[in-house]
Amino acid sequence: MNQRKLEILLTNDDGYSAKGINVLADLLLKYGNVTVIAPEKAQSGMSAALSLAYKVRFYKISENEGNGNRLRIYALTGTPADCVKMAMNSFFSIDNRPDLLVSGINHGSNASAASIYSGTLGAAIEGSIYGIPAVGLSLDTHLEEPDFSNIEPYVDTVIEKVISHPPKKGVYLNVNFPYLKKNEIKGFKFARQGMGMWIKEFHKSLEKGEEELYYMTGEFIDTDSSELGDHKVVNRGYISVVPHNIDTTDYRERERLEREWNML
Amino acid sequence: MNQRKLEILLTNDDGYSAKGINVLADLLLKYGNVTVIAPEKAQSGMSAALSLAYKVRFYKISENEGNGNRLRIYALTGTPADCVKMAMNSFFSIDNRPDLLVSGINHGSNASAASIYSGTLGAAIEGSIYGIPAVGLSLDTHLEEPDFSNIEPYVDTVIEKVISHPPKKGVYLNVNFPYLKKNEIKGFKFARQGMGMWIKEFHKSLEKGEEELYYMTGEFIDTDSSELGDHKVVNRGYISVVPHNIDTTDYRERERLEREWNML
Repeated sequence: MNQRKLEILLTNDDGYSAKGINVLADLLLKYGNVTVIAPEKAQSGMSAALSLAYKVRFYKISENEGNGNRLRIYALTGTPADCVKMAMNSFFSIDNRPDLLVSGINHGSNASAASIYSGTLGAAIEGSIYGIPAVGLSLDTHLEEPDFSNIEPYVDTVIEKVISHPPKKGVYLNVNFPYLKKNEIKGFKFARQGMGMWIKEFHKSLEKGEEELYYMTGEFIDTDSSELGDHKVVNRGYISVVPHNIDTTDYRERERLEREWNML
Repeated sequence: MNQRKLEILLTNDDGYSAKGINVLADLLLKYGNVTVIAPEKAQSGMSAALSLAYKVRFYKISENEGNGNRLRIYALTGTPADCVKMAMNSFFSIDNRPDLLVSGINHGSNASAASIYSGTLGAAIEGSIYGIPAVGLSLDTHLEEPDFSNIEPYVDTVIEKVISHPPKKGVYLNVNFPYLKKNEIKGFKFARQGMGMWIKEFHKSLEKGEEELYYMTGEFIDTDSSELGDHKVVNRGYISVVPHNIDTTDYRERERLEREWNML
């Protein structure tokens, strides 16, 4: 499984100092050299956004050895997708790609509609554009200092499977772990992107002098009738695995509309 | 075609004062009431990002009548997807949706990989999540003050077709116009999301005292072997129309990996 030394690129959207990415960096070191390029600060909800309007700062945090492999950590004042681009500019290239891109472990679920807004997955999309096998990992809890030890053996399984049986070109994986004890986790289940939406999201600030200001919160509406929606699978105690394609063309709808619009 | 007064939500990623959105607002007024909620400043490359970390400011710019319909314009210090959420919080709801969401006209192409980073389409995705028929319109030029008059009759055609034959639930349209004279435009072509990527994107700032700073630019690599990639269709002088699905699950890859990972 692990004969060749792999080059692994690791990022996230919670920032380089988050617990989830540091747990993951240690775990990945047994597979090869790990290059971490992660946001300086939390970038949740950044989707595949890029820093087009601002200059970004890029600097080294540390470089160490572990398991005979090199762990180097860099911070970037940009988005998760920026981090992948910076890695491809600074340490890798399209002729010298990393063997694997891992994003996470995110503090919080990225199942269902969250997958659309997720910076964790924005980085995985970016890796997939470059042709790198990419996987986003997220733990379904909002505890500030969650216990990642229950899922570590399952994370190893995911990494081994992605190495031995990667998704095809243009496809990245979204893996969500339930926040349960190791023996309560029921195993893996291949799922689909769950359907749902958040409503009532913007609330008026009640701070004095902030009359025009709004902050975001909200209420999730589950509109998924399938039992295979990833958020439902996670709620039932499984680890959901969803392959997503960067080509989001709806080919059937293309044919239908072409016919109906009757333009050609 | 135009018997009932429609409620149209209009946004963009270039900001409420951009020429493209103002041309479009005037054009849309013949179909019904138009509510513009657009970013205060340019938000290009923001994808479906949300402002989770900051409070946003939301304020009225103007309210006028035109063609017997109401045009109200608001600015938001947030992303294009935020603008749609604010509209659904402030003027509409899931029980009282706008009849149509239009995003644009973007100054610049959103074909090929640009569709992934596009704030114009981030807003269309957000509309689609709420079940609103949504379309993003983009003009393939980087002129600061482009001439939109050549494409106006074609924009009308798109709006009329989306009203009479909307995409199915969960599908939004990405329409890209070539920057040509009216009689040079060859017509519409239903296309697919073109494949490609930008490389060599981050460049070191050469300003004094900015040693760790980088700015983004880059070189587009066309990796599309199909003649139906939307960027290629536009380059040939057609208006590309691509239906995109907010469900990006790759169902075939789901089956293949489930079998290969052999976990169940």
